[in-house]
Amino acid sequence: MEYQKVLIAGKWRESKNPADRFNAVNPENKQALPENYPVCGEEDILEAIQAGKEAAVELRKIPRERLARFLELFADKIEAHADELVETAHIETALPKEPRLKDVELPRTTGQLREAARAAREMSWCNATIDSAVNIRSMMGPLDGPVSVFGPNNFPFAFNSVSGGDFTAAVATGNPVIAKANTGHPGTTLIFARLAFEAVRETDLPPATVQMIYRTPPDLGFRLVSDPDIGASAFTGTKSAGLKLKEAADRAGKPIYLEMSSVNPVFILPGAIEERSSEIAAELFGSCAMGTGQFCTNPGLIIVQKGEASEQFIRSLSEMFSSNPPGTLLSLSGADDILEAVRILISAGARLLTGGNRVESESCMAENTLLRVDASQFIKHPRELQTEAYGTASLIVVANDIREMKEMASVMEGNLTGTIYSHCKGKDDEAYDILEPELRTRVGRLLNDKTPTGVAVVSAMNHGGPYPSTGHPGFTAVGLPASMLRFAALYCFDNVRQHRLPAELQDKNPTGNMWRMIDGEWTQKDI
Amino acid sequence: MEYQKVLIAGKWRESKNPADRFNAVNPENKQALPENYPVCGEEDILEAIQAGKEAAVELRKIPRERLARFLELFADKIEAHADELVETAHIETALPKEPRLKDVELPRTTGQLREAARAAREMSWCNATIDSAVNIRSMMGPLDGPVSVFGPNNFPFAFNSVSGGDFTAAVATGNPVIAKANTGHPGTTLIFARLAFEAVRETDLPPATVQMIYRTPPDLGFRLVSDPDIGASAFTGTKSAGLKLKEAADRAGKPIYLEMSSVNPVFILPGAIEERSSEIAAELFGSCAMGTGQFCTNPGLIIVQKGEASEQFIRSLSEMFSSNPPGTLLSLSGADDILEAVRILISAGARLLTGGNRVESESCMAENTLLRVDASQFIKHPRELQTEAYGTASLIVVANDIREMKEMASVMEGNLTGTIYSHCKGKDDEAYDILEPELRTRVGRLLNDKTPTGVAVVSAMNHGGPYPSTGHPGFTAVGLPASMLRFAALYCFDNVRQHRLPAELQDKNPTGNMWRMIDGEWTQKDI
Repeated sequence: MEYQKVLIAGKWRESKNPADRFNAVNPENKQALPENYPVCGEEDILEAIQAGKEAAVELRKIPRERLARFLELFADKIEAHADELVETAHIETALPKEPRLKDVELPRTTGQLREAARAAREMSWCNATIDSAVNIRSMMGPLDGPVSVFGPNNFPFAFNSVSGGDFTAAVATGNPVIAKANTGHPGTTLIFARLAFEAVRETDLPPATVQMIYRTPPDLGFRLVSDPDIGASAFTGTKSAGLKLKEAADRAGKPIYLEMSSVNPVFILPGAIEERSSEIAAELFGSCAMGTGQFCTNPGLIIVQKGEASEQFIRSLSEMFSSNPPGTLLSLSGADDILEAVRILISAGARLLTGGNRVESESCMAENTLLRVDASQFIKHPRELQTEAYGTASLIVVANDIREMKEMASVMEGNLTGTIYSHCKGKDDEAYDILEPELRTRVGRLLNDKTPTGVAVVSAMNHGGPYPSTGHPGFTAVGLPASMLRFAALYCFDNVRQHRLPAELQDKNPTGNMWRMIDGEWTQKDI
Repeated sequence: MEYQKVLIAGKWRESKNPADRFNAVNPENKQALPENYPVCGEEDILEAIQAGKEAAVELRKIPRERLARFLELFADKIEAHADELVETAHIETALPKEPRLKDVELPRTTGQLREAARAAREMSWCNATIDSAVNIRSMMGPLDGPVSVFGPNNFPFAFNSVSGGDFTAAVATGNPVIAKANTGHPGTTLIFARLAFEAVRETDLPPATVQMIYRTPPDLGFRLVSDPDIGASAFTGTKSAGLKLKEAADRAGKPIYLEMSSVNPVFILPGAIEERSSEIAAELFGSCAMGTGQFCTNPGLIIVQKGEASEQFIRSLSEMFSSNPPGTLLSLSGADDILEAVRILISAGARLLTGGNRVESESCMAENTLLRVDASQFIKHPRELQTEAYGTASLIVVANDIREMKEMASVMEGNLTGTIYSHCKGKDDEAYDILEPELRTRVGRLLNDKTPTGVAVVSAMNHGGPYPSTGHPGFTAVGLPASMLRFAALYCFDNVRQHRLPAELQDKNPTGNMWRMIDGEWTQKDI
């Protein structure tokens, strides 16, 4: 049997002793695609780690400018192969070619790469700190081994393990990457790996700066994140898989950054409903249905206060859920997973307003689903009623008053986002002030009168949040340069002579415009 | 039996259902001190967590200026009670009153508190980042619960759980602290808690901003660091205790910052030996004997290259170890622990040059101990030969050449510090360049021609390092404001209206001199 190749130690080669094989599936027609991919075995993993470790040592010696050029060249190549990427990703994920893949996700991906190149070149990200009187100097620098990246299925470009945010941040920080291709879109990942490796060669980076493997048996995944020669790992995916990887990495003392589940509560205060009920319903339905509900920031929980206006809002939202056609899900198991989550929600006291069934179709589909429960019930069973349904499936919670809304917030797990819709002219100000302090510490990003989907790639973005939405509340997976800090260690040089210091810490500002904290002041000057 | 009181939920009270009792010991005469302390039980811990959680909510509403005043007032009170503190700490630890406790550690402690006050007041530490075009704003802010602090035995003031670096950083960041008093100096800690609590009341902070308990059975320690209502934990102490706490915290998804063991390798290149052998030997012995070798940055491993000059250096260092009187250790078990470590080193191939025995004395003492082993043997048994002996006990390793020195570095575990002594006029430049890249990523702070003991409290300091010297390579326990970032979460506000934003993120610069990253530029201006 002929397998697609892996990229290990600078070579495109067959997997050694593949443990099994798999095929990608077109979610549009549930048919397996023709290419065979190997389930990688132990030899593949160990060879990749060893080569990655050697590349890490080499990369530390290479000027940051070269990293920047690699990232830009890779972005150029992605643009030059946009059609091939869009075509392949569409077949593997059923995501629309336009605007989604071609006009939204692809430019976002190349934009991230170029922004990371800017950050690597400009060097300010590393927080260079110099106390000149005692000649102690510190900065964030690359890790002591490659970063392993596990990409999710829902963003085949922007979160791809060989082109997405984690890859980009890890490389811009000066680390090699071992990318584990998501099993949903191995062909797309293969193209990215091909282009990235071309860019590696053309910028003369160590060949193992970019390596790419496919799925592995679970124990080899644990091995990868916990190997002594790994620098850190980044995982985006389900909570169950993420927590197992976390346990393995934690036990070995290896940093791992996880983006796991999130139900992204949206609280709608009474003044907002009174003011613009149908506008909010439409906006919210759009957010719930975006990407067939398979966005990390999908609003899975919508909280209103009881009353006729809210009932009208619920009817109108429910009508949108039932009258709009369901989208195609990313995977064969997607509908089953949604129905299982719906079953858990119902068994904990929620009742169906619409949907809740499989769709008989040649595509992967489930009905758009809206459920409802009282806040008092939610507060009794917060764990079950926060079950994430990965699709266009949300739970409306009806609270008696703002106190109960606050109590609901107080039993919520950590989430990536939390949203408060409020009256434009101040009618909800008091309620906002009661709710916000409780919600704020439970979410990574707090939104006001705006849907949580649509994660702007800007420096102030936080695409992170308290456990279990991620593994650590202090880091973000989106937004440069902050996302780079996940893949860095703090280096300090005490009494080290000028010519032995990294360029970032020498007296002369290495770029002329790098921001450094010198003797307590941020400055772009030399010492 | 009468017990010393705990400080829980704003009350000085008896421990409820103490699990046992303990007494501190004067290491000078091995006699138990008269005060009885309770081993705290479950009710104490749970009540402290609950009160800490409520204080965390309250503290978030309080102006940062009030936190700053608390820290300064506490520093003032420490100075006003310096004699009592010095006297008590001296009896509990046998550390010299002068200069060590009174003139070095106490001013360092109050200095840290005042510097933290400055950081809290000035606000720049929180990395406020604003993208004005999209109105997304982020900052580091306090955690969602109290920070539990486990202080070590070796710095009764500067790392005390109620006055030291972790306490100070956690409070300056806006978090309440649950301090677990080190069992070696509970009386000292009790005085600090009394003064801190006075300052809490006088600045009208939530009463549970500072709480203090004593030792607990191990399972309650695990409970404390993993409770859902805990924000994070900080631990400084032995690797065995630290790793168990880490496991409990990791499993619960709670951040824990650990400072564990470190052997702090010192590489002495041939040119340095040739140039100033006796000067380096004297400097190094001073560093090894400082605090009777019970410093986190104590040089436990000294690496030289073979040759007559090195033999002379070893003889001269050995002579200093044997001719200088041993110091008093901090605890009754200190000598046993050192001898056990020496036994492991010998069983792995090291041989004694001097010392290696208990000292018959009424004080807690072990002989100054120097051992020796070849690098080839070290490379065969790196784990055993990196066993930390917590005292004036070091291992000299003799390497054949710089390549073997480099290989030694490559098998080393993560350390807080690594030092390279080199020729002043450049004779060792080539060797330095071979060794440094291998050593740099294995240590938190790289020193050149300087002993590792003596941790300057400056903003560029890194008192951290790769696992297992700490639990995460990106954070430092000393140096403000960087050490505060351990006790913070990333908050992001998306489309939130001006008056609902924290002061740090509103258009107007809240202090006039706070540094913020606005649209990619560090600035002290308003928007």
